Amino acid sequence: MVLTAQEKAGILVEALPYIKKFYGKIIVVKYGGHAMLNCELKRAVMTDLVLMKYVGMHPVVVHGGGPDISKMLKRLGKETSFVNGLRVTDAETMEVVEMVLGRLNKEITALINRLGGRAVGLCGKDANLVMAAKKPGKVRLADGSEVEQDLGFVGRVTQVNPDLLLSVIQQGYIPVVAPIGLGPDGEGYNINADTVAGKIAEALGADKLIILTDVEGILSDPADKGSVISVLRVDDIPELVASGKISGGMIPKLECCAAAIKGGVKRAHILDGRVLHAILLEVFTDEGIGTMVLP
Amino acid sequence: MVLTAQEKAGILVEALPYIKKFYGKIIVVKYGGHAMLNCELKRAVMTDLVLMKYVGMHPVVVHGGGPDISKMLKRLGKETSFVNGLRVTDAETMEVVEMVLGRLNKEITALINRLGGRAVGLCGKDANLVMAAKKPGKVRLADGSEVEQDLGFVGRVTQVNPDLLLSVIQQGYIPVVAPIGLGPDGEGYNINADTVAGKIAEALGADKLIILTDVEGILSDPADKGSVISVLRVDDIPELVASGKISGGMIPKLECCAAAIKGGVKRAHILDGRVLHAILLEVFTDEGIGTMVLP
Amino acid sequence: MVLTAQEKAGILVEALPYIKKFYGKIIVVKYGGHAMLNCELKRAVMTDLVLMKYVGMHPVVVHGGGPDISKMLKRLGKETSFVNGLRVTDAETMEVVEMVLGRLNKEITALINRLGGRAVGLCGKDANLVMAAKKPGKVRLADGSEVEQDLGFVGRVTQVNPDLLLSVIQQGYIPVVAPIGLGPDGEGYNINADTVAGKIAEALGADKLIILTDVEGILSDPADKGSVISVLRVDDIPELVASGKISGGMIPKLECCAAAIKGGVKRAHILDGRVLHAILLEVFTDEGIGTMVLP
Amino acid sequence: MVLTAQEKAGILVEALPYIKKFYGKIIVVKYGGHAMLNCELKRAVMTDLVLMKYVGMHPVVVHGGGPDISKMLKRLGKETSFVNGLRVTDAETMEVVEMVLGRLNKEITALINRLGGRAVGLCGKDANLVMAAKKPGKVRLADGSEVEQDLGFVGRVTQVNPDLLLSVIQQGYIPVVAPIGLGPDGEGYNINADTVAGKIAEALGADKLIILTDVEGILSDPADKGSVISVLRVDDIPELVASGKISGGMIPKLECCAAAIKGGVKRAHILDGRVLHAILLEVFTDEGIGTMVLP
Amino acid sequence: MVLTAQEKAGILVEALPYIKKFYGKIIVVKYGGHAMLNCELKRAVMTDLVLMKYVGMHPVVVHGGGPDISKMLKRLGKETSFVNGLRVTDAETMEVVEMVLGRLNKEITALINRLGGRAVGLCGKDANLVMAAKKPGKVRLADGSEVEQDLGFVGRVTQVNPDLLLSVIQQGYIPVVAPIGLGPDGEGYNINADTVAGKIAEALGADKLIILTDVEGILSDPADKGSVISVLRVDDIPELVASGKISGGMIPKLECCAAAIKGGVKRAHILDGRVLHAILLEVFTDEGIGTMVLP
Amino acid sequence: MVLTAQEKAGILVEALPYIKKFYGKIIVVKYGGHAMLNCELKRAVMTDLVLMKYVGMHPVVVHGGGPDISKMLKRLGKETSFVNGLRVTDAETMEVVEMVLGRLNKEITALINRLGGRAVGLCGKDANLVMAAKKPGKVRLADGSEVEQDLGFVGRVTQVNPDLLLSVIQQGYIPVVAPIGLGPDGEGYNINADTVAGKIAEALGADKLIILTDVEGILSDPADKGSVISVLRVDDIPELVASGKISGGMIPKLECCAAAIKGGVKRAHILDGRVLHAILLEVFTDEGIGTMVLP
Repeated sequence: MVLTAQEKAGILVEALPYIKKFYGKIIVVKYGGHAMLNCELKRAVMTDLVLMKYVGMHPVVVHGGGPDISKMLKRLGKETSFVNGLRVTDAETMEVVEMVLGRLNKEITALINRLGGRAVGLCGKDANLVMAAKKPGKVRLADGSEVEQDLGFVGRVTQVNPDLLLSVIQQGYIPVVAPIGLGPDGEGYNINADTVAGKIAEALGADKLIILTDVEGILSDPADKGSVISVLRVDDIPELVASGKISGGMIPKLECCAAAIKGGVKRAHILDGRVLHAILLEVFTDEGIGTMVLP
Repeated sequence: MVLTAQEKAGILVEALPYIKKFYGKIIVVKYGGHAMLNCELKRAVMTDLVLMKYVGMHPVVVHGGGPDISKMLKRLGKETSFVNGLRVTDAETMEVVEMVLGRLNKEITALINRLGGRAVGLCGKDANLVMAAKKPGKVRLADGSEVEQDLGFVGRVTQVNPDLLLSVIQQGYIPVVAPIGLGPDGEGYNINADTVAGKIAEALGADKLIILTDVEGILSDPADKGSVISVLRVDDIPELVASGKISGGMIPKLECCAAAIKGGVKRAHILDGRVLHAILLEVFTDEGIGTMVLP
Repeated sequence: MVLTAQEKAGILVEALPYIKKFYGKIIVVKYGGHAMLNCELKRAVMTDLVLMKYVGMHPVVVHGGGPDISKMLKRLGKETSFVNGLRVTDAETMEVVEMVLGRLNKEITALINRLGGRAVGLCGKDANLVMAAKKPGKVRLADGSEVEQDLGFVGRVTQVNPDLLLSVIQQGYIPVVAPIGLGPDGEGYNINADTVAGKIAEALGADKLIILTDVEGILSDPADKGSVISVLRVDDIPELVASGKISGGMIPKLECCAAAIKGGVKRAHILDGRVLHAILLEVFTDEGIGTMVLP
Repeated sequence: MVLTAQEKAGILVEALPYIKKFYGKIIVVKYGGHAMLNCELKRAVMTDLVLMKYVGMHPVVVHGGGPDISKMLKRLGKETSFVNGLRVTDAETMEVVEMVLGRLNKEITALINRLGGRAVGLCGKDANLVMAAKKPGKVRLADGSEVEQDLGFVGRVTQVNPDLLLSVIQQGYIPVVAPIGLGPDGEGYNINADTVAGKIAEALGADKLIILTDVEGILSDPADKGSVISVLRVDDIPELVASGKISGGMIPKLECCAAAIKGGVKRAHILDGRVLHAILLEVFTDEGIGTMVLP
Repeated sequence: MVLTAQEKAGILVEALPYIKKFYGKIIVVKYGGHAMLNCELKRAVMTDLVLMKYVGMHPVVVHGGGPDISKMLKRLGKETSFVNGLRVTDAETMEVVEMVLGRLNKEITALINRLGGRAVGLCGKDANLVMAAKKPGKVRLADGSEVEQDLGFVGRVTQVNPDLLLSVIQQGYIPVVAPIGLGPDGEGYNINADTVAGKIAEALGADKLIILTDVEGILSDPADKGSVISVLRVDDIPELVASGKISGGMIPKLECCAAAIKGGVKRAHILDGRVLHAILLEVFTDEGIGTMVLP
Repeated sequence: MVLTAQEKAGILVEALPYIKKFYGKIIVVKYGGHAMLNCELKRAVMTDLVLMKYVGMHPVVVHGGGPDISKMLKRLGKETSFVNGLRVTDAETMEVVEMVLGRLNKEITALINRLGGRAVGLCGKDANLVMAAKKPGKVRLADGSEVEQDLGFVGRVTQVNPDLLLSVIQQGYIPVVAPIGLGPDGEGYNINADTVAGKIAEALGADKLIILTDVEGILSDPADKGSVISVLRVDDIPELVASGKISGGMIPKLECCAAAIKGGVKRAHILDGRVLHAILLEVFTDEGIGTMVLP
């Protein structure tokens, strides 16, 4: 489609109310899934972040890295098992997690810089950003009872120290954060990236938490991709989860959104990261995409 | 034409390089002519300025007001005469000039504020912003000789004190300046708005001076509206003027651009203010509109 | 009278306690009436303001402009009527109000600058300084009942946004404010200057509100110019007004003082603007002139 | 003489041009002689300094203390001798010098504070403010030849470190400095207060150095108190001194002024400290008192 | 003892936890007694202070001067008497007190500067730092009754204005304070240095108050120098004092510590100033020396 | 050895001159070799850095990671070859380099944080810190001629952008930098860590560059470990290298020191990282260890 310059100008003007609305606001983006694997999508996400920063918003990126971790473990002939969706992480596995996330983190940083932004790659170990502790694991047996299961270096967030983030944001940088937590003895912990994004959003008093996923949003009927729930009140989530209609993989994401909203974040969004410029669409237009969670 | 959100996002992304390019830069806009009379154009210009401010540029507006001045003088039964295009301005006329520009200035200011910007209406008398002196006038007689002609309170700029402008710019305001100069005895002077815009651009070390006019640009053949000269080197202007091809009304505007460029402004533009969002087109796209003067 | 340098020095020293007392304090001056028409008085008022600024106080001027507005309306053959002392202001009249106040505002600004101060001329439209709404008007009929009367663009203050004022004050400027309010649709409103001064004093947390008038102060016996009430407690005002002893024209001024005091201003003064350096006399000496309203 | 408030206001207004002229400027005052002994004069000098500070100037005081030192030495039965007007200062004498100046310094400080200023009492030992070395002394014998004479702890200034002064000035304090220098081994040196004042004025880039004395100024005829030289060019001083017309006691003061002017101070003044408010007269009026040295 | 560089490095490393603990904290040191008389001790104390400042703590010194005062009074043939351990201070004595403390104050300042610190010598008269009033005195007669006794210029602290201290601390200076208070009429008061140190510690929100004495600490058995009480809870002090076991001279020091702790100071210490680097031992090691008072 | 607290205090005092000397100075430490492998040494180095930061110096760490990279390549069955000591780095190898350095970088960061410092882990990709380009490689053939050899992603530094470093240093953080460069197309480059340390020292205007190695220093006789050259002038280095006496592995380190000195760094040191607290010994004592290069 060919647009005249005139028509393009009109579209810029349409963006103005959204620019005003989020001017000076912090927006935490969980970046993961398909959007990390596909080059065009990756570039589109980073461009969106740079654009947001230039027009006065303060994006913060938290990224995952699951597929690359699995690939590297496989190359190293290291077996890996999952309990309730969490990777059992022994010391050797943890080393691989830190290596892979370390490389990915700086790759994302470099891409943002190359697109004209100024990014800094961090993880929970920098300036004690994300303090963590061992997460207790459980396995449900056939008789319905649960037994403790050692998940190794899988962690939960005990504290977020946002000083470093606030300082680099203020100086014009886009922080890119790998979901590694710092344990009390200096050991690293592998933490779910959605959780880290939510906790950081909370600690920063963010206006928005955006979780990029590989689905259209929360579906009221998992079999019908057209049944995206556009808006959810945080108080309606427990009932919805209890209804059993929500796909299992979405439940932790929803709960993460709910926790962030309860922690003071204004809006949380589950967006389809497979859509080009999904973040921009959410931030700069009225057309709701994905699911928005409200207080 | 109906665009998908996707296509709109693409257009925002296209604007990014221009946003980067002018981030933190001062852009002085001479606002006058048709764009002051037509409501839709007026609103479009002000929206452009607000958008520019939000994405990190620092627009400064200098406006004219000729038609309103003439109308008010007529209502008051006050005759007015012109010498070489300059209004002979006696004390009574000057009072009307200041009244009309004063009202227009705050009207523009209010419109920017209403569109979400934060504007401050100023003139040369505020904080000694534009210091002026009487401009000597000349009339060419039939025999080709020139005689002195008293133009009254028509002024020339003797000094620009940009402190106040820099301070309000820094605090996030858009300054709107009426072209009144302050004489050595506190008297006001009526100064050509193009000239004031050029001098202010120079004093502020602006990146761009944009003069909105009611023509397509500088035409190489005044009879052919398609003959717009896109790019002019400042050194080529004297020859072009001497060639006699340039329309008389454009000559002072060209000279004003040339002076600004010589004074350190990076680019000067003569744009067609009758085009909706002409400023946005110039700043955010590659498609040259009007005439650009380069060093 | 000829003073020795010695005696002059003594008088400067006498001013010291007053300088200390108001150091860093905001003092809002309503400037109007005779003091705007007489050149010597005008110059004396402006000199007082400049002196106050230099010795560390922060004066803010709010000016009126009634006589000039009437004169201009007359020149334009525009009839004007008053209801309860308020000018019925149709759109055409409002345009004249804005023009005349716009010119006066910058004239006052220029005069302060010329006397060595650094002034900035503003009105309620700048940075949404004074937000306004239509003021309901009433006419009392012969039978004592009241009927609604449309006063046109006569406004009341709905909000004062003092950011711009505070910022220019902090940078060493003297703000000069014309009593134009900004309506919700960008339209201007004609507001009583005493009211604007009082509301601004309140919003700025001023130490003093000084209203310059053309009378000696509040008289306990309107027929006796020597009966000036020096000090009035704000709580005594209602009774005094009810007593019927106060001249009608002074009642709104008294009520304006009372509102400011209730809004947190420390002292409000009604001074005789016909006295040379009346502001200085009030601020720098113990000799009470005019009427002071205390909490 | 009884003045009306009106007349007093007029006198304040007359001071305005001087206030403007010295706004933000540093003025170093050497305080000594009669003005330190007479209570009324003392209070007048301190009041002048407080007033200067309040109206935006930055006074710095350097004081002497000769008479009190002599008195204390006498009480202690300590003999003292002078060589070329310099007190031979052995260790015991130096201890007395530091004690007496230490007490005087804080007394002056307290007086300024009591009059509403905020003063800080310092000496050359604070923050290495005035670094000093032993001053070589000479005695002229009957045959005209000179011999070295050990003056003990009489010092000359080797360096002024004005950081502390600049910092307390900036925060609104009036520094009061005793003329003690700090030697390379931590020992104190007794330095001429005029010299210290001059060196400090130089190091601070002062606008004015004012030396209070007990004479009318530099007299062209020492026998005629009416022969005060109002203005002296620094280049004319050597010839004047050579002429033998200048009283011996004034020569070092003149040379101190000359050195300060050569070091960049704009004006140096020798004033009669016996005149009430002599500093105020010099700073706030046109009437020259004493002698002014110009570049 | 000869240490290898290696061993020395190890000792520096051992200091790290203490450096961290007191980083940015204010520590007020009462400096007096033996440590002021012995050159080696004096130098050690000052070195400790400089070291503390360099490693990020903020020491403030308050010093006494009793022995020097007595010596000077004696030289002047001025008799002096004590009531309940307080020197009866007539005007003449007060002058000597101020002289001696003034000299000592700058001597300490100079010594700190020489050791590489940057000190400023102050007293209560500077910037109204310590405001004081006359202290009522009492004498117990033989029959056990008390009679009023005029102590002259012996003062008690009525207010501490810590602005100047905070400002010089912030700029990297070590304040050295003589215990002179400023009375309501500008007169000086002789105040107990322990008291001044305690009040200043309170006003500054200090972390520690350290009182250097000439004893090992508070002894549970005054006859046994080994009976130092290491730690005392503030609530246990009254009972301890009532027990009669504490040496009389220590009681006011203990009460001064108690008052400081109640006023918000975290720890108060009574140290043996005769021990080289006693302050360093207290601050940089775990080995308790002297007596510590806790909340 | 058992020291008394007293002796320990004495040693702290001895450190004072060195603390003063480097107060506020930037010291870049290249951390590598044995000190990265041995736990006790590692901890000692990090403790030294934390101590330096607390006493007012600004350490910056640049680390290597060779052995870990080789180990991981081996585990992945990836062959690796060296040309002139540089690892030929194909894309797959580069990925491993970035992974291993990424993990090491954050491990060092976490260790510093755990010891009480506040560290931030960065690499050349953050905020375009180290810009790089492909390094041309050469191989010397048997006949002495050289042929070009593609080294893959081995880079040389083209530019250092120190803004981010300066900003985090200023805010109290210790930057830890991995020697990855950012190429013009966003690709990473493997750069020699000594070189990166030198270039960063230069760009930061560092006072000192310290290179930790696994040898005693530069030996004048490679066979004699006692022949350490303590001090080398930068101008003497070419001759020394030409002499053939220097061990091959030391030559690039020496050249790196020479380049830093020429670039404005004041001192460069080659220290034996196998010595506990080698950095502390160098910085806090006079006993020269290793080799110092001077301008």
